[in-house]
Amino acid sequence: MSALDDGLARARAIAEEALPERGERLGPLAAPMGYAIEGGKALRGFLVLEGARLHGLDEGAVRGAVQAAECLHAYSLVHDDLPSMDDDDLRRGRPTLHRQWDEATAILAGDGLQALSFELLAGLDLPPSRVVALIRGFASAVGAEGMVLGQAMDIAAETAEAPLTLEEITDLQAKKTGALIRWSAGAGAVMAGADDGPLDTYGRALGMAFQIADDLLDVTGDAGTVGKATGKDADAGKATFVSLLGLKAAQARASALVEEACDALSPYGPDAETLRDAARFVISRKR
Amino acid sequence: MSALDDGLARARAIAEEALPERGERLGPLAAPMGYAIEGGKALRGFLVLEGARLHGLDEGAVRGAVQAAECLHAYSLVHDDLPSMDDDDLRRGRPTLHRQWDEATAILAGDGLQALSFELLAGLDLPPSRVVALIRGFASAVGAEGMVLGQAMDIAAETAEAPLTLEEITDLQAKKTGALIRWSAGAGAVMAGADDGPLDTYGRALGMAFQIADDLLDVTGDAGTVGKATGKDADAGKATFVSLLGLKAAQARASALVEEACDALSPYGPDAETLRDAARFVISRKR
Repeated sequence: MSALDDGLARARAIAEEALPERGERLGPLAAPMGYAIEGGKALRGFLVLEGARLHGLDEGAVRGAVQAAECLHAYSLVHDDLPSMDDDDLRRGRPTLHRQWDEATAILAGDGLQALSFELLAGLDLPPSRVVALIRGFASAVGAEGMVLGQAMDIAAETAEAPLTLEEITDLQAKKTGALIRWSAGAGAVMAGADDGPLDTYGRALGMAFQIADDLLDVTGDAGTVGKATGKDADAGKATFVSLLGLKAAQARASALVEEACDALSPYGPDAETLRDAARFVISRKR
Repeated sequence: MSALDDGLARARAIAEEALPERGERLGPLAAPMGYAIEGGKALRGFLVLEGARLHGLDEGAVRGAVQAAECLHAYSLVHDDLPSMDDDDLRRGRPTLHRQWDEATAILAGDGLQALSFELLAGLDLPPSRVVALIRGFASAVGAEGMVLGQAMDIAAETAEAPLTLEEITDLQAKKTGALIRWSAGAGAVMAGADDGPLDTYGRALGMAFQIADDLLDVTGDAGTVGKATGKDADAGKATFVSLLGLKAAQARASALVEEACDALSPYGPDAETLRDAARFVISRKR
């Protein structure tokens, strides 16, 4: 098992322990919230874990941040899949949450996962000033100026008269997908009270590469492997990096971003090789 | 104008400044998020403001906490009103958010308001250890062990075979409505680094009195004055404090809770008279 596979598996295991650790206290939401977290790649949790390791932080001290990143990501998928949003039936190869339960449960499980992610961060046993800095970045990355706004812009684009320009789609995706990936990459440095500049640059480039790869998968992947519906963007006439740049140029752009991400890690030397592998994985993944 | 009216008006003004202060950065969500905050009583924001005043904190220093309480409350109303939940058309005498816009906008505006409330708390200019304590309490009050769970229990009760018992409805309402009121009451003490015991007791009793009054309004009020549909609980065959205790006993229970709330404030002496007025207001209100 490569160090990358091992790190992703560790992050996944930590994420999936977030709910069992709370026992019976979540009542009827325990099962749907757990379902939402299961089966992900845990890329965001891995980024938190690996950034923390690079800064000498113990895995036990940062578990809550790993879980927070994955809970938040899970919430965003559950709400994005709702009938009034992207109306998806399939996610990670299984029925979406509102198909498995119902809409009310999906909305509430998502709401609960967002709140839980903040609770996990506030519960970190680290110097309070660092915890506050971490939460501040998290809230603005996911909130009405970040991820939530990105999704609102995405939905507005569906009914807009003209398709988005490259500049607009770049801004939209930096918010919708990029912000949480960027926060996850930088979290280790913030928790260590260190300069998060290099990891932030890495996370920004990685987030954009990830989204271009996602657009490529929507064109080149098949639903069985990807674990969700494909071809949706083209069917909807939506502007994507692929529709705007073309297949080849989109691939070249993603490769250039991966290179930029890897270069940003030079202060960490060979110790950051697993993060470099993660960047390469992001554009070569099949799901 | 009484000190209570004045305090509620101050809290309302502060709450309604939360979004304009962020300017254009909220894009298409600015208008719906603002709409969700407008026109409330601002009871929760008032509790934060008044608790802070009792502990000698400057209004400017606690603005973010006042806004956080009201943003969170607004989010919970927007999501509760959705078609898949309580399916309400009227709120505060106006169309509910999903009727004024659409479901996707209502879900996202709610998500954005939840995130914004945490961002506002994390931005408070207070000692970081107090900010972390405040956020920790907030997250657990609103999250999957608090408000969100209370709403899930409420929805589950609608399809349950037997109506809820008094014990069950007390537990449900302590989570659904009580937790945020309780947090709001105690926030001033937490922000001052003081013992929050008296205000916490006050807030717990006030929250329960508030809910009983709400159940009474559903029976005795008319929609025009209350600003939302009434008679819904009885129509739905839902257990409430009124259906379980009867009208008179429910009124008596609410009065006893108000007395308990007022008694808890004795360490503050006459300085807490406005909070006592608030408790009396809660059970005499017409909307």
